[in-house]
Amino acid sequence: MTLDTTTDTTDSTGTASPGTEVAAAAAHHHGYISDKDRYLTRMKRIEGQARGIAKMIDDEKYCIDILTQVSALTRALQGVATGLLDAHLKHCVLDAAKLGDDDAAIAKIQEATDAINRLVRS
Amino acid sequence: MTLDTTTDTTDSTGTASPGTEVAAAAAHHHGYISDKDRYLTRMKRIEGQARGIAKMIDDEKYCIDILTQVSALTRALQGVATGLLDAHLKHCVLDAAKLGDDDAAIAKIQEATDAINRLVRS
Amino acid sequence: MTLDTTTDTTDSTGTASPGTEVAAAAAHHHGYISDKDRYLTRMKRIEGQARGIAKMIDDEKYCIDILTQVSALTRALQGVATGLLDAHLKHCVLDAAKLGDDDAAIAKIQEATDAINRLVRS
Amino acid sequence: MTLDTTTDTTDSTGTASPGTEVAAAAAHHHGYISDKDRYLTRMKRIEGQARGIAKMIDDEKYCIDILTQVSALTRALQGVATGLLDAHLKHCVLDAAKLGDDDAAIAKIQEATDAINRLVRS
Repeated sequence: MTLDTTTDTTDSTGTASPGTEVAAAAAHHHGYISDKDRYLTRMKRIEGQARGIAKMIDDEKYCIDILTQVSALTRALQGVATGLLDAHLKHCVLDAAKLGDDDAAIAKIQEATDAINRLVRS
Repeated sequence: MTLDTTTDTTDSTGTASPGTEVAAAAAHHHGYISDKDRYLTRMKRIEGQARGIAKMIDDEKYCIDILTQVSALTRALQGVATGLLDAHLKHCVLDAAKLGDDDAAIAKIQEATDAINRLVRS
Repeated sequence: MTLDTTTDTTDSTGTASPGTEVAAAAAHHHGYISDKDRYLTRMKRIEGQARGIAKMIDDEKYCIDILTQVSALTRALQGVATGLLDAHLKHCVLDAAKLGDDDAAIAKIQEATDAINRLVRS
Repeated sequence: MTLDTTTDTTDSTGTASPGTEVAAAAAHHHGYISDKDRYLTRMKRIEGQARGIAKMIDDEKYCIDILTQVSALTRALQGVATGLLDAHLKHCVLDAAKLGDDDAAIAKIQEATDAINRLVRS
Protein backbone atom coordinates (compact mmCIF):
# COMPACT_ATOMS: atom_id res chain seq x y z
CA MET A 1 0.00 0.00 0.00
CA THR A 2 1.71 3.18 -1.14
CA LEU A 3 1.13 6.70 0.00
CA ASP A 4 0.35 8.79 -3.03
CA THR A 5 1.74 12.13 -1.92
CA THR A 6 0.46 13.84 -5.03
CA THR A 7 -3.09 12.98 -4.11
CA ASP A 8 -5.63 15.76 -4.03
CA THR A 9 -5.99 16.89 -0.42
CA THR A 10 -9.56 18.11 -0.86
CA ASP A 11 -11.50 16.79 2.07
CA SER A 12 -14.74 15.09 1.21
CA THR A 13 -16.28 16.16 4.48
CA GLY A 14 -15.20 19.72 3.94
CA THR A 15 -14.50 20.16 7.62
CA ALA A 16 -10.90 19.09 8.22
CA SER A 17 -8.72 21.98 9.29
CA PRO A 18 -6.45 22.63 6.34
CA GLY A 19 -2.77 22.92 6.96
CA THR A 20 -2.42 20.60 9.93
CA GLU A 21 -0.69 18.16 7.68
CA VAL A 22 2.11 20.58 6.79
CA ALA A 23 4.63 18.79 8.98
CA ALA A 24 4.06 15.41 7.32
CA ALA A 25 7.15 14.85 5.23
CA ALA A 26 6.63 13.48 1.74
CA ALA A 27 8.02 10.06 2.62
CA HIS A 28 6.22 9.76 5.94
CA HIS A 29 3.45 7.20 6.33
CA HIS A 30 0.83 8.02 8.94
CA GLY A 31 0.88 5.50 11.74
CA TYR A 32 -2.51 3.97 11.11
CA ILE A 33 -1.81 3.11 7.51
CA SER A 34 -0.29 -0.29 8.23
CA ASP A 35 -3.72 -1.08 9.72
CA LYS A 36 -5.65 0.79 7.06
CA ASP A 37 -7.79 -2.16 5.95
CA ARG A 38 -8.76 -2.92 9.52
CA TYR A 39 -9.79 0.71 10.10
CA LEU A 40 -11.79 0.73 6.87
CA THR A 41 -13.59 -2.43 8.01
CA ARG A 42 -14.36 -0.84 11.37
CA MET A 43 -15.69 2.33 9.73
CA LYS A 44 -17.85 0.24 7.36
CA ARG A 45 -19.32 -1.51 10.39
CA ILE A 46 -19.90 1.86 12.09
CA GLU A 47 -21.64 3.14 8.96
CA GLY A 48 -23.84 0.03 9.07
CA GLN A 49 -24.61 0.67 12.73
CA ALA A 50 -25.68 4.25 11.88
CA ARG A 51 -27.91 2.88 9.11
CA GLY A 52 -29.35 0.33 11.55
CA ILE A 53 -30.24 3.09 14.01
CA ALA A 54 -31.93 5.11 11.26
CA LYS A 55 -33.96 2.01 10.39
CA MET A 56 -34.94 1.52 14.05
CA ILE A 57 -36.20 5.12 14.12
CA ASP A 58 -38.05 4.63 10.82
CA ASP A 59 -39.61 1.45 12.24
CA GLU A 60 -40.55 3.41 15.38
CA LYS A 61 -38.74 1.07 17.74
CA TYR A 62 -38.67 1.68 21.47
CA CYS A 63 -36.52 4.74 22.33
CA ILE A 64 -34.47 2.91 24.97
CA ASP A 65 -33.53 0.16 22.51
CA ILE A 66 -32.38 2.82 20.06
CA LEU A 67 -30.31 4.46 22.82
CA THR A 68 -28.60 1.14 23.50
CA GLN A 69 -27.49 1.04 19.86
CA VAL A 70 -26.37 4.67 19.99
CA SER A 71 -24.17 3.86 23.00
CA ALA A 72 -22.70 0.85 21.19
CA LEU A 73 -21.95 3.01 18.15
CA THR A 74 -20.36 5.70 20.31
CA ARG A 75 -18.10 3.11 21.93
CA ALA A 76 -17.10 1.72 18.53
CA LEU A 77 -16.17 5.25 17.43
CA GLN A 78 -14.14 5.84 20.58
CA GLY A 79 -12.28 2.62 19.86
CA VAL A 80 -11.36 3.96 16.41
CA ALA A 81 -10.32 7.28 17.95
CA THR A 82 -8.02 5.81 20.59
CA GLY A 83 -6.58 3.43 18.00
CA LEU A 84 -5.74 6.34 15.69
CA LEU A 85 -4.25 8.29 18.61
CA ASP A 86 -2.09 5.33 19.60
CA ALA A 87 -0.84 4.99 16.02
CA HIS A 88 -0.18 8.75 15.85
CA LEU A 89 1.92 8.61 19.01
CA LYS A 90 3.77 5.41 18.09
CA HIS A 91 4.63 6.55 14.57
CA CYS A 92 4.26 10.27 13.83
CA VAL A 93 5.53 11.43 17.24
CA LEU A 94 8.24 8.81 17.61
CA ASP A 95 9.51 9.30 14.06
CA ALA A 96 9.90 13.03 14.68
CA ALA A 97 11.65 12.37 18.00
CA LYS A 98 14.04 9.88 16.41
CA LEU A 99 14.94 12.41 13.71
CA GLY A 100 16.06 14.61 16.61
CA ASP A 101 13.42 17.12 15.62
CA ASP A 102 12.19 18.12 19.07
CA ASP A 103 10.04 20.97 17.84
CA ALA A 104 8.23 18.73 15.36
CA ALA A 105 7.74 16.03 18.01
CA ILE A 106 6.39 18.55 20.54
CA ALA A 107 4.08 20.02 17.88
CA LYS A 108 2.73 16.56 17.09
CA ILE A 109 2.21 15.79 20.78
CA GLN A 110 0.36 19.09 21.16
CA GLU A 111 -1.94 18.07 18.30
CA ALA A 112 -2.53 14.75 20.08
CA THR A 113 -3.27 16.51 23.37
CA ASP A 114 -5.74 18.82 21.64
CA ALA A 115 -7.41 15.79 20.06
CA ILE A 116 -7.57 14.04 23.45
CA ASN A 117 -9.14 17.17 24.94
CA ARG A 118 -11.80 17.11 22.26
CA LEU A 119 -12.38 13.40 22.89
CA VAL A 120 -12.81 13.67 26.66
CA ARG A 121 -14.40 17.13 26.24
CA SER A 122 -12.57 18.52 29.22
CA MET B 1 -46.87 8.42 9.40
CA THR B 2 -48.76 5.87 11.46
CA LEU B 3 -47.51 3.49 14.06
CA ASP B 4 -48.27 -0.02 12.91
CA THR B 5 -48.55 -1.82 16.19
CA THR B 6 -48.85 -5.16 14.49
CA THR B 7 -45.47 -4.70 12.92
CA ASP B 8 -42.88 -7.43 13.23
CA THR B 9 -40.56 -6.46 16.07
CA THR B 10 -37.54 -8.23 14.61
CA ASP B 11 -34.67 -5.84 14.99
CA SER B 12 -32.64 -5.20 11.87
CA THR B 13 -29.50 -4.71 13.95
CA GLY B 14 -30.09 -7.92 15.82
CA THR B 15 -28.78 -6.39 19.01
CA ALA B 16 -31.72 -4.70 20.72
CA SER B 17 -32.60 -6.31 24.00
CA PRO B 18 -35.87 -8.10 23.38
CA GLY B 19 -38.69 -7.47 25.76
CA THR B 20 -37.86 -3.95 26.83
CA GLU B 21 -40.80 -2.77 24.82
CA VAL B 22 -43.28 -4.93 26.74
CA ALA B 23 -44.65 -1.99 28.66
CA ALA B 24 -45.42 0.04 25.55
CA ALA B 25 -49.17 -0.02 25.26
CA ALA B 26 -50.64 -0.63 21.84
CA ALA B 27 -51.91 2.90 21.42
CA HIS B 28 -48.79 4.56 22.77
CA HIS B 29 -46.55 6.55 20.44
CA HIS B 30 -42.92 6.75 21.46
CA GLY B 31 -41.98 10.31 22.31
CA TYR B 32 -39.54 10.88 19.47
CA ILE B 33 -42.02 9.98 16.77
CA SER B 34 -43.43 13.47 16.40
CA ASP B 35 -39.85 14.43 15.46
CA LYS B 36 -39.21 11.27 13.48
CA ASP B 37 -38.28 13.00 10.23
CA ARG B 38 -35.83 15.26 11.99
CA TYR B 39 -34.16 12.26 13.67
CA LEU B 40 -33.98 10.42 10.34
CA THR B 41 -32.30 13.46 8.79
CA ARG B 42 -29.80 13.61 11.65
CA MET B 43 -29.02 9.90 11.31
CA LYS B 44 -28.57 10.28 7.53
CA ARG B 45 -26.07 13.06 8.20
CA ILE B 46 -24.29 10.89 10.79
CA GLU B 47 -24.12 8.03 8.28
CA GLY B 48 -22.58 10.48 5.81
CA GLN B 49 -20.05 11.59 8.43
CA ALA B 50 -19.06 7.95 9.01
CA ARG B 51 -18.64 7.49 5.26
CA GLY B 52 -16.56 10.67 5.09
CA ILE B 53 -14.23 9.37 7.83
CA ALA B 54 -13.84 6.05 5.97
CA LYS B 55 -12.90 8.03 2.87
CA MET B 56 -10.35 10.10 4.83
CA ILE B 57 -8.75 6.84 6.00
CA ASP B 58 -8.81 5.42 2.48
CA ASP B 59 -7.20 8.64 1.22
CA GLU B 60 -4.61 8.33 4.02
CA LYS B 61 -5.36 11.73 5.49
CA TYR B 62 -3.53 13.01 8.54
CA CYS B 63 -4.57 11.09 11.69
CA ILE B 64 -5.32 14.22 13.71
CA ASP B 65 -7.69 15.54 11.03
CA ILE B 66 -9.51 12.22 11.09
CA LEU B 67 -9.75 12.42 14.89
CA THR B 68 -11.35 15.85 14.60
CA GLN B 69 -14.07 14.32 12.43
CA VAL B 70 -14.51 11.38 14.82
CA SER B 71 -15.07 13.85 17.68
CA ALA B 72 -17.62 15.78 15.61
CA LEU B 73 -19.44 12.54 14.78
CA THR B 74 -19.42 11.47 18.44
CA ARG B 75 -20.93 14.80 19.45
CA ALA B 76 -23.62 14.48 16.78
CA LEU B 77 -24.49 11.02 18.13
CA GLN B 78 -24.64 12.30 21.69
CA GLY B 79 -27.04 14.99 20.51
CA VAL B 80 -29.32 12.30 19.07
CA ALA B 81 -29.02 10.30 22.31
CA THR B 82 -29.93 13.15 24.64
CA GLY B 83 -32.75 14.14 22.30
CA LEU B 84 -34.21 10.63 22.41
CA LEU B 85 -33.83 10.55 26.20
CA ASP B 86 -35.63 13.86 26.54
CA ALA B 87 -38.48 12.60 24.36
CA HIS B 88 -38.62 9.35 26.38
CA LEU B 89 -38.93 11.29 29.63
CA LYS B 90 -41.42 13.84 28.32
CA HIS B 91 -43.69 11.26 26.71
CA CYS B 92 -43.22 7.64 27.79
CA VAL B 93 -42.53 8.46 31.44
CA LEU B 94 -45.04 11.26 31.76
CA ASP B 95 -47.79 9.28 30.02
CA ALA B 96 -47.32 6.40 32.46
CA ALA B 97 -47.34 8.82 35.40
CA LYS B 98 -50.52 10.51 34.19
CA LEU B 99 -52.24 7.15 33.87
CA GLY B 100 -51.50 6.81 37.59
CA ASP B 101 -49.38 3.77 36.81
CA ASP B 102 -46.53 4.40 39.22
CA ASP B 103 -44.84 1.06 38.65
CA ALA B 104 -44.78 1.56 34.89
CA ALA B 105 -43.46 5.12 35.29
CA ILE B 106 -40.73 4.00 37.69
CA ALA B 107 -39.80 1.12 35.34
CA LYS B 108 -39.49 3.56 32.45
CA ILE B 109 -37.37 5.94 34.53
CA GLN B 110 -35.14 3.02 35.51
CA GLU B 111 -34.65 2.24 31.81
CA ALA B 112 -33.76 5.88 31.23
CA THR B 113 -31.29 5.85 34.12
CA ASP B 114 -29.65 2.70 32.78
CA ALA B 115 -29.38 4.33 29.36
CA ILE B 116 -27.85 7.46 30.92
CA ASN B 117 -25.35 5.27 32.76
CA ARG B 118 -24.35 3.69 29.49
CA LEU B 119 -24.06 7.12 27.90
CA VAL B 120 -21.83 8.64 30.56
CA ARG B 121 -20.15 5.25 31.12
CA SER B 122 -20.12 5.72 34.86
CA MET C 1 -34.36 14.31 58.75
CA THR C 2 -36.40 17.42 58.12
CA LEU C 3 -36.19 19.83 55.28
CA ASP C 4 -35.79 23.29 56.74
CA THR C 5 -37.50 25.35 54.12
CA THR C 6 -36.59 28.58 55.87
CA THR C 7 -32.93 27.80 55.47
CA ASP C 8 -30.69 30.41 53.92
CA THR C 9 -30.24 29.46 50.28
CA THR C 10 -26.81 31.03 49.98
CA ASP C 11 -24.67 28.50 48.23
CA SER C 12 -21.35 27.73 49.83
CA THR C 13 -19.76 27.19 46.45
CA GLY C 14 -21.15 30.42 45.15
CA THR C 15 -21.80 28.88 41.76
CA ALA C 16 -25.26 27.34 41.84
CA SER C 17 -27.67 29.08 39.52
CA PRO C 18 -30.07 30.89 41.78
CA GLY C 19 -33.73 30.41 41.15
CA THR C 20 -33.72 26.92 39.75
CA GLU C 21 -35.31 25.74 42.95
CA VAL C 22 -38.31 28.00 42.58
CA ALA C 23 -40.60 25.13 41.65
CA ALA C 24 -39.77 23.10 44.74
CA ALA C 25 -42.84 23.30 46.88
CA ALA C 26 -42.34 23.93 50.58
CA ALA C 27 -43.33 20.43 51.58
CA HIS C 28 -41.40 18.70 48.82
CA HIS C 29 -38.37 16.60 49.69
CA HIS C 30 -35.77 16.26 46.95
CA GLY C 31 -35.54 12.68 45.80
CA TYR C 32 -32.01 11.99 47.00
CA ILE C 33 -32.73 12.98 50.57
CA SER C 34 -33.92 9.54 51.65
CA ASP C 35 -30.41 8.44 50.65
CA LYS C 36 -28.73 11.54 52.01
CA ASP C 37 -26.34 9.73 54.35
CA ARG C 38 -25.21 7.40 51.62
CA TYR C 39 -24.52 10.35 49.29
CA LEU C 40 -22.61 12.15 52.05
CA THR C 41 -20.49 9.02 52.56
CA ARG C 42 -19.80 8.81 48.84
CA MET C 43 -18.80 12.48 48.68
CA LYS C 44 -16.52 12.03 51.73
CA ARG C 45 -14.82 9.18 49.91
CA ILE C 46 -14.51 11.29 46.76
CA GLU C 47 -12.97 14.11 48.80
CA GLY C 48 -10.50 11.57 50.18
CA GLN C 49 -9.70 10.38 46.65
CA ALA C 50 -8.98 13.99 45.61
CA ARG C 51 -6.70 14.39 48.65
CA GLY C 52 -4.96 11.11 47.76
CA ILE C 53 -4.29 12.35 44.23
CA ALA C 54 -2.87 15.63 45.58
CA LYS C 55 -0.57 13.57 47.82
CA MET C 56 0.54 11.41 44.86
CA ILE C 57 1.45 14.61 43.00
CA ASP C 58 3.26 16.00 46.05
CA ASP C 59 5.14 12.68 46.37
CA GLU C 60 5.96 12.92 42.64
CA LYS C 61 4.44 9.56 41.77
CA TYR C 62 4.42 8.24 38.23
CA CYS C 63 2.03 10.25 36.02
CA ILE C 64 0.22 7.19 34.70
CA ASP C 65 -0.54 5.93 38.21
CA ILE C 66 -1.99 9.34 39.05
CA LEU C 67 -4.12 9.20 35.89
CA THR C 68 -5.50 5.84 36.98
CA GLN C 69 -6.68 7.45 40.21
CA VAL C 70 -8.14 10.43 38.35
CA SER C 71 -10.18 8.03 36.18
CA ALA C 72 -11.41 6.19 39.28
CA LEU C 73 -12.42 9.49 40.88
CA THR C 74 -14.20 10.60 37.70
CA ARG C 75 -16.16 7.35 37.62
CA ALA C 76 -17.11 7.74 41.29
CA LEU C 77 -18.39 11.25 40.53
CA GLN C 78 -20.39 10.02 37.54
CA GLY C 79 -21.96 7.42 39.82
CA VAL C 80 -23.10 10.19 42.17
CA ALA C 81 -24.39 12.20 39.21
CA THR C 82 -26.47 9.42 37.69
CA GLY C 83 -27.76 8.52 41.16
CA LEU C 84 -28.93 12.08 41.75
CA LEU C 85 -30.51 12.19 38.30
CA ASP C 86 -32.36 8.95 38.95
CA ALA C 87 -33.67 10.31 42.25
CA HIS C 88 -34.67 13.57 40.56
CA LEU C 89 -36.66 11.69 37.95
CA LYS C 90 -38.25 9.22 40.35
CA HIS C 91 -39.29 11.87 42.86
CA CYS C 92 -39.28 15.48 41.66
CA VAL C 93 -40.57 14.69 38.17
CA LEU C 94 -43.01 11.99 39.20
CA ASP C 95 -44.42 14.06 42.07
CA ALA C 96 -45.13 16.93 39.71
CA ALA C 97 -46.72 14.57 37.20
CA LYS C 98 -48.91 12.98 39.86
CA LEU C 99 -50.10 16.41 40.98
CA GLY C 100 -51.34 16.76 37.40
CA ASP C 101 -48.99 19.69 36.97
CA ASP C 102 -47.77 18.96 33.44
CA ASP C 103 -45.93 22.24 33.04
CA ALA C 104 -43.96 21.68 36.26
CA ALA C 105 -43.18 18.08 35.28
CA ILE C 106 -42.00 19.13 31.82
CA ALA C 107 -39.90 21.92 33.35
CA LYS C 108 -38.25 19.45 35.71
CA ILE C 109 -37.58 17.01 32.87
CA GLN C 110 -36.04 19.86 30.87
CA GLU C 111 -33.71 20.58 33.80
CA ALA C 112 -32.79 16.90 33.88
CA THR C 113 -32.13 16.86 30.11
CA ASP C 114 -29.92 19.93 30.42
CA ALA C 115 -28.01 18.25 33.25
CA ILE C 116 -27.61 15.07 31.16
CA ASN C 117 -26.30 17.20 28.29
CA ARG C 118 -23.71 18.70 30.58
CA LEU C 119 -22.79 15.22 31.84
CA VAL C 120 -22.30 13.64 28.45
CA ARG C 121 -20.99 16.97 27.06
CA SER C 122 -22.87 16.57 23.81
CA MET D 1 11.40 21.25 45.28
CA THR D 2 13.66 18.27 44.77
CA LEU D 3 12.82 14.79 43.66
CA ASP D 4 13.76 12.41 46.45
CA THR D 5 14.37 9.24 44.52
CA THR D 6 14.85 7.24 47.71
CA THR D 7 11.36 8.12 48.82
CA ASP D 8 9.08 5.39 50.03
CA THR D 9 6.84 4.39 47.14
CA THR D 10 3.96 3.28 49.35
CA ASP D 11 0.86 4.72 47.85
CA SER D 12 -1.36 6.63 50.20
CA THR D 13 -4.43 5.69 48.25
CA GLY D 14 -3.46 2.06 48.23
CA THR D 15 -4.82 1.62 44.74
CA ALA D 16 -2.02 2.48 42.33
CA SER D 17 -0.92 -0.50 40.28
CA PRO D 18 2.49 -1.43 41.66
CA GLY D 19 5.32 -1.82 39.25
CA THR D 20 4.20 0.60 36.56
CA GLU D 21 6.95 2.91 37.68
CA VAL D 22 9.70 0.36 37.03
CA ALA D 23 10.80 2.10 33.87
CA ALA D 24 11.29 5.44 35.57
CA ALA D 25 15.03 5.82 35.89
CA ALA D 26 16.37 7.17 39.14
CA ALA D 27 17.39 10.50 37.64
CA HIS D 28 14.22 10.98 35.60
CA HIS D 29 11.78 13.70 36.58
CA HIS D 30 8.18 13.03 35.64
CA GLY D 31 6.94 15.59 33.16
CA TYR D 32 4.37 17.28 35.40
CA ILE D 33 6.85 18.07 38.14
CA SER D 34 7.93 21.39 36.70
CA ASP D 35 4.26 22.35 37.14
CA LYS D 36 3.87 20.55 40.44
CA ASP D 37 2.71 23.56 42.44
CA ARG D 38 0.10 24.42 39.85
CA TYR D 39 -1.24 20.84 39.91
CA LEU D 40 -1.33 20.87 43.71
CA THR D 41 -3.33 24.11 43.60
CA ARG D 42 -5.75 22.60 41.10
CA MET D 43 -6.20 19.48 43.24
CA LYS D 44 -6.77 21.64 46.35
CA ARG D 45 -9.50 23.46 44.46
CA ILE D 46 -11.00 20.15 43.32
CA GLU D 47 -10.97 18.90 46.91
CA GLY D 48 -12.80 22.10 47.90
CA GLN D 49 -15.35 21.53 45.13
CA ALA D 50 -15.98 17.99 46.45
CA ARG D 51 -16.45 19.42 49.95
CA GLY D 52 -18.83 22.06 48.57
CA ILE D 53 -20.94 19.37 46.91
CA ALA D 54 -21.09 17.38 50.16
CA LYS D 55 -22.29 20.55 51.90
CA MET D 56 -24.95 21.12 49.23
CA ILE D 57 -26.21 17.58 49.86
CA ASP D 58 -26.11 18.09 53.62
CA ASP D 59 -28.05 21.35 53.16
CA GLU D 60 -30.52 19.46 50.95
CA LYS D 61 -30.08 21.75 47.98
CA TYR D 62 -31.93 21.19 44.73
CA CYS D 63 -30.63 18.07 42.92
CA ILE D 64 -30.12 19.84 39.60
CA ASP D 65 -27.96 22.52 41.22
CA ILE D 66 -25.83 19.78 42.78
CA LEU D 67 -25.51 18.10 39.36
CA THR D 68 -24.25 21.35 37.87
CA GLN D 69 -21.45 21.37 40.45
CA VAL D 70 -20.68 17.68 39.82
CA SER D 71 -20.29 18.45 36.09
CA ALA D 72 -17.97 21.38 36.88
CA LEU D 73 -15.88 19.15 39.16
CA THR D 74 -15.72 16.42 36.51
CA ARG D 75 -14.49 18.94 33.94
CA ALA D 76 -11.85 20.24 36.36
CA LEU D 77 -10.63 16.66 36.87
CA GLN D 78 -10.51 16.02 33.15
CA GLY D 79 -8.39 19.15 32.78
CA VAL D 80 -5.93 17.74 35.30
CA ALA D 81 -5.95 14.39 33.48
CA THR D 82 -5.25 15.79 30.02
CA GLY D 83 -2.59 18.07 31.50
CA LEU D 84 -0.82 15.10 33.10
CA LEU D 85 -1.09 13.13 29.86
CA ASP D 86 0.40 15.99 27.88
CA ALA D 87 3.30 16.25 30.33
CA HIS D 88 3.78 12.46 30.18
CA LEU D 89 4.01 12.54 26.40
CA LYS D 90 6.22 15.63 26.21
CA HIS D 91 8.67 14.40 28.84
CA CYS D 92 8.56 10.69 29.71
CA VAL D 93 7.89 9.53 26.13
CA LEU D 94 10.15 12.04 24.41
CA ASP D 95 13.01 11.43 26.84
CA ALA D 96 12.89 7.71 26.15
CA ALA D 97 12.74 8.33 22.39
CA LYS D 98 15.72 10.68 22.54
CA LEU D 99 17.74 8.10 24.43
CA GLY D 100 17.16 5.89 21.40
CA ASP D 101 15.27 3.46 23.62
CA ASP D 102 12.42 2.58 21.28
CA ASP D 103 11.06 -0.20 23.45
CA ALA D 104 10.85 2.09 26.48
CA ALA D 105 9.22 4.84 24.40
CA ILE D 106 6.66 2.44 22.93
CA ALA D 107 5.94 1.03 26.41
CA LYS D 108 5.33 4.54 27.73
CA ILE D 109 3.06 5.38 24.79
CA GLN D 110 1.14 2.16 25.45
CA GLU D 111 0.63 3.26 29.06
CA ALA D 112 -0.61 6.61 27.79
CA THR D 113 -3.00 4.94 25.34
CA ASP D 114 -4.36 2.71 28.11
CA ALA D 115 -4.87 5.80 30.28
CA ILE D 116 -6.64 7.60 27.41
CA ASN D 117 -8.88 4.56 26.96
CA ARG D 118 -9.82 4.70 30.62
CA LEU D 119 -10.48 8.45 30.30
CA VAL D 120 -12.75 8.24 27.29
CA ARG D 121 -14.09 4.85 28.50
CA SER D 122 -14.07 3.39 25.04
